[in-house]
Amino acid sequence: MTDLLPLADTPMNDVSTQSQPTIILVEPQLGQNIGTAARAMANFGLHELRLVNPRDGWPSEWASKAAAGADHVVNNAELFSSSAAAVHDLHHVYATTARGRDLAKAVLTPEDAAKDMRERVSGGQRVGILFGREKSGLTNDDITLADSIIMAPVDPEFASLNLAQAVLLTSYEWFKLGKWSLGDGSREDGAVKGAGLRLAGSWPATKKELIGFFEHLEGELDESGFLRPPERRPSMIRNLRNLFQRASLSEQEIRTLRGVIASLVRQHKRPK
Amino acid sequence: MTDLLPLADTPMNDVSTQSQPTIILVEPQLGQNIGTAARAMANFGLHELRLVNPRDGWPSEWASKAAAGADHVVNNAELFSSSAAAVHDLHHVYATTARGRDLAKAVLTPEDAAKDMRERVSGGQRVGILFGREKSGLTNDDITLADSIIMAPVDPEFASLNLAQAVLLTSYEWFKLGKWSLGDGSREDGAVKGAGLRLAGSWPATKKELIGFFEHLEGELDESGFLRPPERRPSMIRNLRNLFQRASLSEQEIRTLRGVIASLVRQHKRPK
Repeated sequence: MTDLLPLADTPMNDVSTQSQPTIILVEPQLGQNIGTAARAMANFGLHELRLVNPRDGWPSEWASKAAAGADHVVNNAELFSSSAAAVHDLHHVYATTARGRDLAKAVLTPEDAAKDMRERVSGGQRVGILFGREKSGLTNDDITLADSIIMAPVDPEFASLNLAQAVLLTSYEWFKLGKWSLGDGSREDGAVKGAGLRLAGSWPATKKELIGFFEHLEGELDESGFLRPPERRPSMIRNLRNLFQRASLSEQEIRTLRGVIASLVRQHKRPK
Repeated sequence: MTDLLPLADTPMNDVSTQSQPTIILVEPQLGQNIGTAARAMANFGLHELRLVNPRDGWPSEWASKAAAGADHVVNNAELFSSSAAAVHDLHHVYATTARGRDLAKAVLTPEDAAKDMRERVSGGQRVGILFGREKSGLTNDDITLADSIIMAPVDPEFASLNLAQAVLLTSYEWFKLGKWSLGDGSREDGAVKGAGLRLAGSWPATKKELIGFFEHLEGELDESGFLRPPERRPSMIRNLRNLFQRASLSEQEIRTLRGVIASLVRQHKRPK
């Protein structure tokens, strides 16, 4: 969970008071969808789940099964008898909808909502996101409880996201703005910058090694007659060097390539 | 589909040549997951789906059922007998993985990958994304076909995304960078900035050309005895392919490299 604490320069909130948004499923119909939503939450470090009157009762075997390991989320879900009760202790509530509504509330993308949530949570506010019923979404009364609306950009011709997918996108955008690293921890920051090139397990070659390889290759190509006519030699060499340069070769790869060259020319160099 | 055309000020690409990434599911196990992935694609305006050896055969009733209306995606899916065949006509391929791998390729977030894809597609390149088997993901050989890796930022303690969710996030980030409006059209932006990554003056090789080059090189190295002992051959080939893959070779460069190989081996092949 430490990965998720919002901003390095703000006091850390006790998780029990809230360091992350609460996901609120309003009258979800299928236990399976609750489980899949819980799993999506866990993928992005969220664990505070509230359920308003799940249709098929609670606890749900289907939910546990579909959670596929996100048991901590499912088992700690809190039950409420109304949407109003489920948001009672929150400072700011977002309602997710698939289509535009005439409700005169701010409409945010998941990305913008995530920024807004980060700011509020780091300032000590408790925030929550309402997700509607699989078939019919949130009612206008549910939405009235919310301060702003979250809509994901989708193809208007195929606009309906299922429940777990809506939870996934919202959780994902929240997580992206926190601290995280890709894979081996080579990268750890919140702001998403350009990707790094990871040379796993091998040290990048020095320019000296790289040039040694170039000269080896070019020496053999001079001998084999490839770098002719002489007036084209400089540009041919430039092109070859450029393409290998782009590969950001490691030491080990340089050794491999030198082995390749030696192997290819070996036979014709053998004394007759 | 018009929402998705890449840049307002570039000539519109014919969709038949490609205006969007191709989603490639490698040996998906359950038809249901293919359907859910197709639905996630449709949510974000993608429709080019390729399947490599779906385990339970094709067409699949389960897939159609789970697609929940994304029939156009499922019905037009193309079948391939290998990952290599499924990427043969693409210029740039991304592989999605859940965990770090020692493969010395650039690792991109879905967001960075989406930017990269937009630039390439608007420059006329054909791009595709490989997604692995539900249980085991992509093999190293699958990944070797790719130019770069996509990893989503996830909670390391609960890192596995299911197939449809991985497709969803990647498609979502692609869509976000296109033109779209929320609901009532209150917002319309997302135009891609940034210059193209185009290799000056030369067209990127297709995977078919690249694999042709690999096979040429490996054939000569088999003959020269470099790829021994046999048990090390697969990993030696993988390492060689990876390093050349990283260079994003152009057609012209592939021709040059094939000329280099031919020149190096010429003398010893000359009849004595």
